Amino acid sequence: MSAASAQRPGQGLRRTVEDIRSMKVRGAGAIGVAGAQALADHVQTLEGRPNEVLQGARQAACELDTARPTAVTLHNGLGWVLAAVAAASSLAEQKRNALQAARLVAEQAKASKAAIAQQGARHMPDDGLVLTHCHSSAAVAVLAAAHKAGKRFDVIATETRPFRQGLLTVKALREAGIDCALTVDSAVEHHLATRDVDAVLVGADAVARDGSLFNKIGTSGVAALAHLRDVPVYSAAGLHKFTTRGPEAIPIEERDGAEVVGLADLPPGVRVLNPVFDRTPPDRITGYLTEEGLLSPAKAVARNVPQLPPEEVWR
Amino acid sequence: MSAASAQRPGQGLRRTVEDIRSMKVRGAGAIGVAGAQALADHVQTLEGRPNEVLQGARQAACELDTARPTAVTLHNGLGWVLAAVAAASSLAEQKRNALQAARLVAEQAKASKAAIAQQGARHMPDDGLVLTHCHSSAAVAVLAAAHKAGKRFDVIATETRPFRQGLLTVKALREAGIDCALTVDSAVEHHLATRDVDAVLVGADAVARDGSLFNKIGTSGVAALAHLRDVPVYSAAGLHKFTTRGPEAIPIEERDGAEVVGLADLPPGVRVLNPVFDRTPPDRITGYLTEEGLLSPAKAVARNVPQLPPEEVWR
Repeated sequence: MSAASAQRPGQGLRRTVEDIRSMKVRGAGAIGVAGAQALADHVQTLEGRPNEVLQGARQAACELDTARPTAVTLHNGLGWVLAAVAAASSLAEQKRNALQAARLVAEQAKASKAAIAQQGARHMPDDGLVLTHCHSSAAVAVLAAAHKAGKRFDVIATETRPFRQGLLTVKALREAGIDCALTVDSAVEHHLATRDVDAVLVGADAVARDGSLFNKIGTSGVAALAHLRDVPVYSAAGLHKFTTRGPEAIPIEERDGAEVVGLADLPPGVRVLNPVFDRTPPDRITGYLTEEGLLSPAKAVARNVPQLPPEEVWR
Repeated sequence: MSAASAQRPGQGLRRTVEDIRSMKVRGAGAIGVAGAQALADHVQTLEGRPNEVLQGARQAACELDTARPTAVTLHNGLGWVLAAVAAASSLAEQKRNALQAARLVAEQAKASKAAIAQQGARHMPDDGLVLTHCHSSAAVAVLAAAHKAGKRFDVIATETRPFRQGLLTVKALREAGIDCALTVDSAVEHHLATRDVDAVLVGADAVARDGSLFNKIGTSGVAALAHLRDVPVYSAAGLHKFTTRGPEAIPIEERDGAEVVGLADLPPGVRVLNPVFDRTPPDRITGYLTEEGLLSPAKAVARNVPQLPPEEVWR
């Protein structure tokens, strides 16, 4: 519980909402952890009968949940905290449960990444070339584990407009000692056509019930182009990214056009379309790199998705 | 002839080389015209026997020709001026011929654009949606002619990193009264998947002997993704963009990585790959919008390419 939220109930909550919305806190894993912790902190400031506290927690969870609509980690992380609050029968237990659930969400995200890295490294090429899009700490962990295991490969990372998360990726790769190059997003087809790319590796914001991947804008195009050339496409996706929602029930977030172009550069009357995620159909994904190893989209659909917090806790 | 080049021979030449190299003068049509004029201006400063003058003109032409390697308009424009100089038998005639040839190159580029616009407009949709990549004044002329003829359509223009020529496109479209929106390059597949895009329209830097298109980096990816969805792909390409060179003989210019990312933002040890053109195979092009109407790549290959200046004039 932060000092600020203790002093003024709701302030820590609103700051986290703003940090997630403005992408000060970003990445599917990180926003799930931050959301769960902010909710648990907020529960510490609530008073009243258990039902009133649960109601207050739900309101706060809804506020946090709207900060980013596409990644399911935020929704699921909040759901776990709500479920823990709902399961308690006294105020003290509610507060304790909330903090414990938030801690579990954080621990699970960390453990998930380590397991994905270990499992996923075997699918990375030796003496090869990997192409990445956007920044995924799980994807970087996979590459770092493969490098540590002695595999040698080069990475081409796309810039990833408009937020340029590619700069985070090359920074993290260099810190892991991995050779890498940055390129503009539109150069993917040129590199696929003129180099031997062994694999495409991306992260995941959500994996829908049908096995399709929701990830950073541009992923679906990269996957389609790789698919045309039989280059395998992997998504590092912890099981907490999976959802029972169908693809039609996962909204694609559209953000402010000012993130693409400053108003001073934009001629009057020109609109800006700034979708920040897209959907890659399952037939363009070779496999999800999960804690349990490689899951083809079909297998991901066929098996039970991991235990999710029940949707009833929101109502 | 500019005053500067009159005062210090070669200075106007070097300034034009620098303007083209730095993209202060940009666009395939514009660099062909600027190169031809700079060469003709330079010929005015030369003295000596016709053979010596021709040799001096060749040296200047080679210098200009290296400024940008991919667009054939520069090479062809220079070739026309060289051919005019080679055909003359006196110094006075050489100077006169050079200026006349440069004027013809400029007039031909202008006439070409007007004819392409008139011919190409019929292939634009009514009540539809066009997606463009990069900036092509010929492509904008086609859209403006279609709009003027009463067709109503919306345009999605890609930003086109790293130089962001998409901003030029939306500015020109708005000036023509055409509704348009800007989007990041990687969003093309998302828009194709979620909207009814009627046509893709791009420009051309060169059309090779096999009918393949050399154009701004990203064109080949956009064309491949459009092709997958049976969306027609048009290239506004004046016949002076066609060349007898095979695709292997057209170099893809790689430019300084600093155009993609400032050194301050680039982690140590990270390379930047900055190819600024790519090759779209002929089977992904529906047709070239030329002065003579729509030419399929196969037809463009089968018919004689337009009269080109003979390569012998360079030697």
